[in-house]
Amino acid sequence: LPFCAFLGSLGLGCMAFVSVWCQHWRGGFAWDGSARMFNWHPVLMVTGMVVLYGAAALVYRLPPTWRGPKLPWKMLHSTLALIAFILAVLGLVAVFNFHNASGTPNMYSLHSWLGLGTILLFSCQWVAGFSAFLLPYAPIWLRALYKPIHIFFGSTILMLSMASCVSGINEKLFFSLKNGTASVPYKLLPPEAVFANILGLLIILFGVLVLCALAK
Amino acid sequence: LPFCAFLGSLGLGCMAFVSVWCQHWRGGFAWDGSARMFNWHPVLMVTGMVVLYGAAALVYRLPPTWRGPKLPWKMLHSTLALIAFILAVLGLVAVFNFHNASGTPNMYSLHSWLGLGTILLFSCQWVAGFSAFLLPYAPIWLRALYKPIHIFFGSTILMLSMASCVSGINEKLFFSLKNGTASVPYKLLPPEAVFANILGLLIILFGVLVLCALAK
Ligand code: HEM
Ligand code: HEM
Ligand code: HEM
Ligand code: HEM
Ligand SMILES: O=C1O[C@H]([C@@H](O)CO)C(O)=C1O
Repeated sequence: LPFCAFLGSLGLGCMAFVSVWCQHWRGGFAWDGSARMFNWHPVLMVTGMVVLYGAAALVYRLPPTWRGPKLPWKMLHSTLALIAFILAVLGLVAVFNFHNASGTPNMYSLHSWLGLGTILLFSCQWVAGFSAFLLPYAPIWLRALYKPIHIFFGSTILMLSMASCVSGINEKLFFSLKNGTASVPYKLLPPEAVFANILGLLIILFGVLVLCALAK
Repeated sequence: LPFCAFLGSLGLGCMAFVSVWCQHWRGGFAWDGSARMFNWHPVLMVTGMVVLYGAAALVYRLPPTWRGPKLPWKMLHSTLALIAFILAVLGLVAVFNFHNASGTPNMYSLHSWLGLGTILLFSCQWVAGFSAFLLPYAPIWLRALYKPIHIFFGSTILMLSMASCVSGINEKLFFSLKNGTASVPYKLLPPEAVFANILGLLIILFGVLVLCALAK
């Protein structure tokens, strides 16, 4: 329980850090194709692919789920995963619209390849989990066969999200705190850089603790 | 066994890709403080922190290690880990010397914070593994207590290396294929960008397969 409380606060901390970064230093939010529309991308990705994703993955680690009927917990697990997925798709819409409006090509960076790959795996995981565990038609042997695969990809996707977030924050700081245009460049570690680097480390810490709880 | 052969080739493939990238597109290697000295950084990091590290972690997954005396396997495991660590330190020397020679500050980026953190954890893992499992003084209860922690951090450090490599490759491509200076910028996906993005995905694939073998 103290572990749950700590993990919950850490998750809220990640959401707070990414929101403050985008609001205070990156000009806030809008849904208009501008750089302020881009700002929804980090917020939605961290909230969906890390914090809500982690919450969904940990549902079966809560002691109350070990007693009584399993169906309500399956509903909670798959609904949290669905909300996480919807936020992630909105986060993609934010960055694609920004790129289209500003004439930037899509899907060129390693960050974008890894990120889209992560989200595609996530959608496969959702569809396969839904078909195997929630639909009543799936035979028991199929469930037993698929379960360890589902659990392995559950952790793998979280790991890939963490790598996507780190590469995204890193590149955004290089873009925004460029040598010429920013008043203090990234190299000289202005407060924004320290703040967003810490955000990256908090995301890693949150992810590692979730993986630790899943590994037990 | 076919899995071992595939993983081995994939590891060699990662080493080949990172070497070809630095040799063919980034101007080759030197040990003189120039950008050609920097090129040792990716090569040594991928070779040490991913490929040799993965090999070291998988030693106890080879069936021959399950029979007979354990000491020679411990020696192999810790020696591979030590070589990986030495290459990683040389890789750090390469980038620090390049930064010092070109007047760039050290340790400002999220990539560098995460990377140095990963190497610090790796050195703790080595010292703790050495003290607990190789020195004959450690009591059995301490070994039993520490073993699951050692195994968990073994996987975690690999995961953090993967995230460090992805963020490093991503930022290096943004630096080298800048809008103004490169003949074809990163955005327009010149062959170098496709090649190095694939390197990033190969590193992820290699790491995920190692983690999969460790999870079993
Ligand atoms: C799991 C988390 C994430 C995923 C799956 C993800 C996915 C993506 C994808 C698919 C693109 C390409 C969009 C396009 O080309 O139109 C993209 C672009 C971008 N993302 Fe993320 N992202 C994630 C987290 C983040 C975070 C936390 C940041 C922090 C600022 C970020 C910063 C960027 C930036 C700057 C771009 C535009 C440049 C580029 O294409 O690399 N991303 N992201
Ligand atoms: C409709 C969608 C889904 C259903 C019905 C479903 C169902 C399940 C079930 C029945 C388990 C096994 C729990 C157990 O018996 O120990 C499980 C575990 C797990 N699921 Fe899902 N799942 C779904 C989607 C997802 C998604 C999208 C993810 C994330 C990618 C995910 C991640 C996990 C993880 C990490 C575990 C392991 C939890 C543990 O070991 O405690 N699931 N899921
Ligand atoms: C586990 C793997 C890696 C670790 C632990 C690591 C660690 C580090 C560290 C500690 C620095 C800071 C050096 C300084 O400030 O003087 C650094 C810089 C750098 N690394 Fe890596 N690195 C890794 C992989 C890579 C890879 C594969 C690349 C690919 C090109 C790369 C590209 C860079 C670049 C461009 C810099 C200079 C800019 C910066 O400080 O971010 N790194 N790395
Ligand atoms: C002197 C240094 C080290 C010694 C003596 C040592 C010893 C051991 C021992 C005895 C095991 C348990 C194997 C078993 O009984 O299943 C083990 C497992 C493991 N070690 Fe080390 N270790 C050392 C350094 C490292 C380092 C530096 C790493 C990487 C960070 C590492 C990663 C791992 C991993 C991933 C496992 C789990 C392997 C498995 O489950 O099959 N070790 N190590
Ligand atoms: O020396 C060792 O310690 C661990 C384990 O026995 C502790 O429980 C192990 O696998 C060894 O070879």
